[in-house]
Amino acid sequence: MSDEFDVVVIGAGPAGENVAGRAVRGGLSVAVVEENLAGGECSYWACVPSKALLRPVDLTAEVGRVPGLTPGPIDVAAVLARRDEAVSNFDDGKQVEWIEGLPAEFARGRGRLRGPKVVEVTAPDGSVRSLRARHAVVLATGSRPLVPPVPGLAEASPWTSHEATAARAVPRRLAVLGGGVVACEMAQALHGLGARETTLLVRGDSLLGRMEPFAGELVAASLAESGVEVRTGAQVTRVERPVPGGPVTVHLAEGAPVEADELLVATGRRAATGDLGLDTVGLSVTGPVEVDDSMRATGVDGGWLYAVGDVNGRNLLTHMGKYQGRVCGDVIAARARGERDDLPGLRDVADGQGAPQVVFTDPQVCAVGRSEAAARAEGFDVRVVEYDLGAVSGAYLLGEGYRGRAKAVVDERRRVLLGVTFAGPGVAEMLHSATVAVTAEVTLDRLWHAVPSFPTVSEVWLRLLEQYGL
Amino acid sequence: MSDEFDVVVIGAGPAGENVAGRAVRGGLSVAVVEENLAGGECSYWACVPSKALLRPVDLTAEVGRVPGLTPGPIDVAAVLARRDEAVSNFDDGKQVEWIEGLPAEFARGRGRLRGPKVVEVTAPDGSVRSLRARHAVVLATGSRPLVPPVPGLAEASPWTSHEATAARAVPRRLAVLGGGVVACEMAQALHGLGARETTLLVRGDSLLGRMEPFAGELVAASLAESGVEVRTGAQVTRVERPVPGGPVTVHLAEGAPVEADELLVATGRRAATGDLGLDTVGLSVTGPVEVDDSMRATGVDGGWLYAVGDVNGRNLLTHMGKYQGRVCGDVIAARARGERDDLPGLRDVADGQGAPQVVFTDPQVCAVGRSEAAARAEGFDVRVVEYDLGAVSGAYLLGEGYRGRAKAVVDERRRVLLGVTFAGPGVAEMLHSATVAVTAEVTLDRLWHAVPSFPTVSEVWLRLLEQYGL
Repeated sequence: MSDEFDVVVIGAGPAGENVAGRAVRGGLSVAVVEENLAGGECSYWACVPSKALLRPVDLTAEVGRVPGLTPGPIDVAAVLARRDEAVSNFDDGKQVEWIEGLPAEFARGRGRLRGPKVVEVTAPDGSVRSLRARHAVVLATGSRPLVPPVPGLAEASPWTSHEATAARAVPRRLAVLGGGVVACEMAQALHGLGARETTLLVRGDSLLGRMEPFAGELVAASLAESGVEVRTGAQVTRVERPVPGGPVTVHLAEGAPVEADELLVATGRRAATGDLGLDTVGLSVTGPVEVDDSMRATGVDGGWLYAVGDVNGRNLLTHMGKYQGRVCGDVIAARARGERDDLPGLRDVADGQGAPQVVFTDPQVCAVGRSEAAARAEGFDVRVVEYDLGAVSGAYLLGEGYRGRAKAVVDERRRVLLGVTFAGPGVAEMLHSATVAVTAEVTLDRLWHAVPSFPTVSEVWLRLLEQYGL
Repeated sequence: MSDEFDVVVIGAGPAGENVAGRAVRGGLSVAVVEENLAGGECSYWACVPSKALLRPVDLTAEVGRVPGLTPGPIDVAAVLARRDEAVSNFDDGKQVEWIEGLPAEFARGRGRLRGPKVVEVTAPDGSVRSLRARHAVVLATGSRPLVPPVPGLAEASPWTSHEATAARAVPRRLAVLGGGVVACEMAQALHGLGARETTLLVRGDSLLGRMEPFAGELVAASLAESGVEVRTGAQVTRVERPVPGGPVTVHLAEGAPVEADELLVATGRRAATGDLGLDTVGLSVTGPVEVDDSMRATGVDGGWLYAVGDVNGRNLLTHMGKYQGRVCGDVIAARARGERDDLPGLRDVADGQGAPQVVFTDPQVCAVGRSEAAARAEGFDVRVVEYDLGAVSGAYLLGEGYRGRAKAVVDERRRVLLGVTFAGPGVAEMLHSATVAVTAEVTLDRLWHAVPSFPTVSEVWLRLLEQYGL
């Protein structure tokens, strides 16, 4: 078994897997190092299980809006069992098989840089192996949940997204710290599955702070209506959990403390760069690994180091990590072959345009490109159009009391879309229409001829263009 | 009240309403003539009520696929009541108000051409009024269901889409003649709402014949599984209904006759050109009114006659009629003002590229552009990619046993999409991504950077491009 490969990838999450797949396709030999489960955070403790938990809750809400249907009870055990199936019962056998079938070498263990082009792998049994990369080392180690330095918090062993998505039982009383995607999604899921007293403790004054303001407002209203208590401006001063596994008390700067059976911390993530040996190649060991648009780490002699996915801090989204992985694998292969490395497919352009993202709450929220605020901050000549999704026939036909909103941010100079946001039940699959329009910079005059089918919710595209004046 | 207007529109369905709205916006005076309800077939007896009937059935099927949920019974009375609400209880007051508010003149009655630029309106009370058009007359009379000349069929007073969507009760035994969109949708809806013995009598050997073959196959399999009997190659020789309103017997060239409580004929529609006075302006009184891409009827001296929507036979789809209505209203206004009439917005380009269409069955089917067969017939250098939708993570997370398929037809010369078809539960809102890509002729290399969000079903876009070789 050789210890020299064209490419060594540290991390077998979706981003790393895509690097490996593309590099092998490009004729290179590849080794993939993974300390935990091949498939990564997304497959076992993030996107996949959270959506498995959200789906029955979401669908039950949809049923409740359709006259003639009555939402039934949710069999929580069955939902958790399907979640277990969705995460392959935390068995990564198939993922490892996929990697080895590329074919690529799979090395189980903790990977650390040990100088230029060298990766040291410490296997679970403590044995150490050194892998040498002929062309490139790719960091794809992802990110870790961030637990803020609140007195007593770490000692209270709070849940992060990791434990929440893998829950074996639903706590009756749940406190959630945070107001972002994970906080909203997990509050909704666990509340729907039985966390009757769910309190969302939001530091700021709104949910989903990076998106258009109406998105967070709609989600907050929906959570509140379903019985989740949303406390904005909540500054946590201290956490107490006297008995491990027992009740936890969250003290706030203002207002009564919150007592819960479980506390979920969803206050962000940080790039997993600690203990990665970055110092052995002259890089900082804190913060994300900065990369250029070919995913190459900046400031490394010889340009052999790359970083894809959460670890580079561009966008902490699975699909963006995978996209970067494709770019990275392809560009490494091109450079290894001495070919042109600046073709359009060999650069990350999507992150710069504003990554698409879906929040699987009820209402769902999805957005791509720039928010109005971001576009204005960047100095674009912006015009904005908005439309009430509930006023679209297709939405009315989905159920009673459909509430939602769409917003498009237009670059007036070029008459193209800088960003689009949809919020409303079932809008997730509408996002890609916006992603295509934003990415391909389709002019509004051309979009005018892209006729939305009646009666779909997508007809809002017509309304937005009419609002614009077309 | 003047009897002279810049534009006279015959037909206040969605197409006619759009002509009126755009022409008024362009500074013209408009009269709209409608014999039946303003709002048209779509609003009362087609798209809208059929979707109101389908939604609870569709959602119940979705619930059945999600572990932890149990589909409940459907309260049919409540569904029919919501359908009635969706069709405004067959009251067009709001639609008339909308037209008058444009402002435009609304004339209730049957409109007929009486020579160049003259429309004679026979009101319900028999009084006759003559409207003169300064610039244009627009035909927007839609289409009528076609009842084939089978012995005994017309005498049996069968349902058409009209009666089926407006049903006040669901027959226990239903026979459906046809295999197109209306036949499939209504068989599914009424079966789901209680027509326990539903038989689909299809003349050809497949459903949804104009779409990619797998679409009809998936729908046929789903109907059969839900208990609908699908009989292909069914040639109806004779229909008997001895007692009006009593049981009806459908005799076939082969096999046992089908007995049912109601018979729905869904074998197509024809342009509503009869009794429209086309002969008074030198046009044929049968078949659709042929138009150019500015919606102007061909073969009429002076070019003052236009036709939009089903009556011109381009595409019998509400959204295409509305689109044509927008083009038509705008082009008439431009010509009336003596302005350029050949700007991009003043031509129908979407019909030529292949109109988008959604079939709201379970699975849903949607397509835009050309099918593979159509593209090959037109001589394109075609390459096709297909992908199993059920293999996409986002689909798996929607439920167990998700079955679906996606197909893209690529123009190899230009590397753009000629057509895209999706079939699978909940795919309707995915269509617009394809409609944008096909309409704007986005190259595959550009689509590569339009990253689908994980885990949406839209991720199939990535899989299709990977299949293609990107």
